[in-house]
Amino acid sequence: MTKPDYAARHTRLAEALASVGLDALALNPGPSLVYFTGLHFHLSERPVVAVFSAAGDVPVLVLPELEAQKLKEAAFELQAFTYTEDLASWPRAFAAAMQAARIDGRRVGVEPRSLRVLELRLLEQAAPDAAFVSGEQAVAALRMRKDAAELALMREATAIAQRALQATLPTVRPGVTEREAAATLIQHLLREGSDGELPFQPIVAFGPNSANPHAVPTDYTLREGDLVLFDWGANHHGYFSDLTRCFVAGEPEAELARIAEVVRQANAAGRAAAGPGVPAGEVDRTARRVVEEAGYGAYFIHRTGHGLGLEVHEDPYIRGDNEQRLAEGMTFTIEPGIYLPGRGGVRIEDDVVITAGGAESLSDLPRELIRLG
Amino acid sequence: MTKPDYAARHTRLAEALASVGLDALALNPGPSLVYFTGLHFHLSERPVVAVFSAAGDVPVLVLPELEAQKLKEAAFELQAFTYTEDLASWPRAFAAAMQAARIDGRRVGVEPRSLRVLELRLLEQAAPDAAFVSGEQAVAALRMRKDAAELALMREATAIAQRALQATLPTVRPGVTEREAAATLIQHLLREGSDGELPFQPIVAFGPNSANPHAVPTDYTLREGDLVLFDWGANHHGYFSDLTRCFVAGEPEAELARIAEVVRQANAAGRAAAGPGVPAGEVDRTARRVVEEAGYGAYFIHRTGHGLGLEVHEDPYIRGDNEQRLAEGMTFTIEPGIYLPGRGGVRIEDDVVITAGGAESLSDLPRELIRLG
Repeated sequence: MTKPDYAARHTRLAEALASVGLDALALNPGPSLVYFTGLHFHLSERPVVAVFSAAGDVPVLVLPELEAQKLKEAAFELQAFTYTEDLASWPRAFAAAMQAARIDGRRVGVEPRSLRVLELRLLEQAAPDAAFVSGEQAVAALRMRKDAAELALMREATAIAQRALQATLPTVRPGVTEREAAATLIQHLLREGSDGELPFQPIVAFGPNSANPHAVPTDYTLREGDLVLFDWGANHHGYFSDLTRCFVAGEPEAELARIAEVVRQANAAGRAAAGPGVPAGEVDRTARRVVEEAGYGAYFIHRTGHGLGLEVHEDPYIRGDNEQRLAEGMTFTIEPGIYLPGRGGVRIEDDVVITAGGAESLSDLPRELIRLG
Repeated sequence: MTKPDYAARHTRLAEALASVGLDALALNPGPSLVYFTGLHFHLSERPVVAVFSAAGDVPVLVLPELEAQKLKEAAFELQAFTYTEDLASWPRAFAAAMQAARIDGRRVGVEPRSLRVLELRLLEQAAPDAAFVSGEQAVAALRMRKDAAELALMREATAIAQRALQATLPTVRPGVTEREAAATLIQHLLREGSDGELPFQPIVAFGPNSANPHAVPTDYTLREGDLVLFDWGANHHGYFSDLTRCFVAGEPEAELARIAEVVRQANAAGRAAAGPGVPAGEVDRTARRVVEEAGYGAYFIHRTGHGLGLEVHEDPYIRGDNEQRLAEGMTFTIEPGIYLPGRGGVRIEDDVVITAGGAESLSDLPRELIRLG
């Protein structure tokens, strides 16, 4: 397995920070901290903050003493400052750490959707003349383009998810409820090697419920002729997969078979359109055109996809108004769908990576509407 | 099912805020927002903030327009302010909402472990002269004491967890891995009716692994003579259970049987000691004394318990230095343990509620060391 090169990530981060006029970046536990440190901390009542500088200084980490053994796992040089269970030691540790990080009076990027008042107040106290502003853009620019180590993890997350579905399908028969099928799928995800924290609760939707893109498993019992939609994913060391496939119990209504074929073509067109230099919106427009030309445009009620990696939804977003250009290493979903209210819906979702010459799908389960049983 | 009385909760909150010198409380999505509104919002890139006043004003809610249909579920009067996908509409909605909530120039409580920079900056912009300080204490004082509606949900969360373990035990035999047993347990939790978001990833630890209180399921295979420890819980409409029981595969070593009996007695002593007016620390000291007198004090390496409800860990904490007095309606775990490194550990965890005359355990699975198979 390729090891992440954290020093290289820090160098790229320093460049990205400088390019947007930031002197440093302060992160609390979450996907970005994992990306830049490889260290896993819970978001708890005890604050953890890492600071990276645009000048390339040694990264600084403040953490509770009782988590200090995790420092042994750090595969890069860092300066650590620990505090104890005595609350008075917290501001002291932050003051020493932020002095080492030299952030006072500087422009410091933070993630507004992740950093909490808990950490912000300690940072403000330790560096009263620093300006804490959004550094989201600099972080997204890096995290969007996956390196070889990340792609290996995403390939494995996809393989686990595919094996789990294949183990689940033989149990999906008329009489089974959505809730039972979801429980079986989760069991197989864990047995096949997914980390316990799944990327999201799988959607298992039968019959009319499949027409709701955000369906939650219910006690609805599978009947002959029902569509069967699975939207599920695995977590492999923090990296996610996110797939959707549809099946049918017995013989489908002619129109349901028809929308399944249209969605299959839209998915294929979206994958074919994706490549380096192509605007993200072009992938959406290409997939959507197939659906529109078949007369179902009004029933494709969401964007075509979203970035995927350490988060289920991240940049780049595959929507018609996003003119951001795709680049090698970007990973995202392509998931067109058609939803006929009260009757059923079909969505086909693959996870793709932009390559030098186009886009490669990490997932390869059949995309046809397969009959179960 | 008893319905929560949100207006009553708001009245108690107004009193609690006034008693700590706060004029209002601003909450983002999380357990406290559920407690005070019954509304479930994801913590997402789109901010949601509710404001409650110490003066008893009608609560104010800022939310994205696309979530506005959730307002229909609100079982109390509120003033809602929505914003659109146009970012410029966000500060406008916050300005109007905070004017209605009259928080400018006031002392506004927030939850520092929950509120993010995203929401804080919008609040600061809308009320530049407000002071945003911790309101955690006022919230904890209310949430600690569960009402009838909450207790009904916790009883059901406990019943689901108990049924799930009973369905799992027949599959736990020599040759099974911890990971497989955990997957089976999770499947049964979901089938028995737990919400999909489990309170925590179950701990399933066999043999020497059971000596680690924070064990994560591995590929270790169960052998004759091994202890089998399950620490698991269910989620019922946001309310949690959190239980631990131990078993043995075949015949236990004499000392492992002995520590199981000591822990059983410590658990019973802790439950008997709990009651209204008793300091939380007294429950810890009583349970710990049993372990110490049996000569295993050095092997009981954690506190005796923690509050439980909408969070897995909340007030009151059952540790020797907590002199906070228990009161009717408080719910917490009692979970003494003895851990013999390299050999095995036993923990017995019940969820209890303080009653008028003592403490009632919501869980009633046998506490003896039962032989499997």
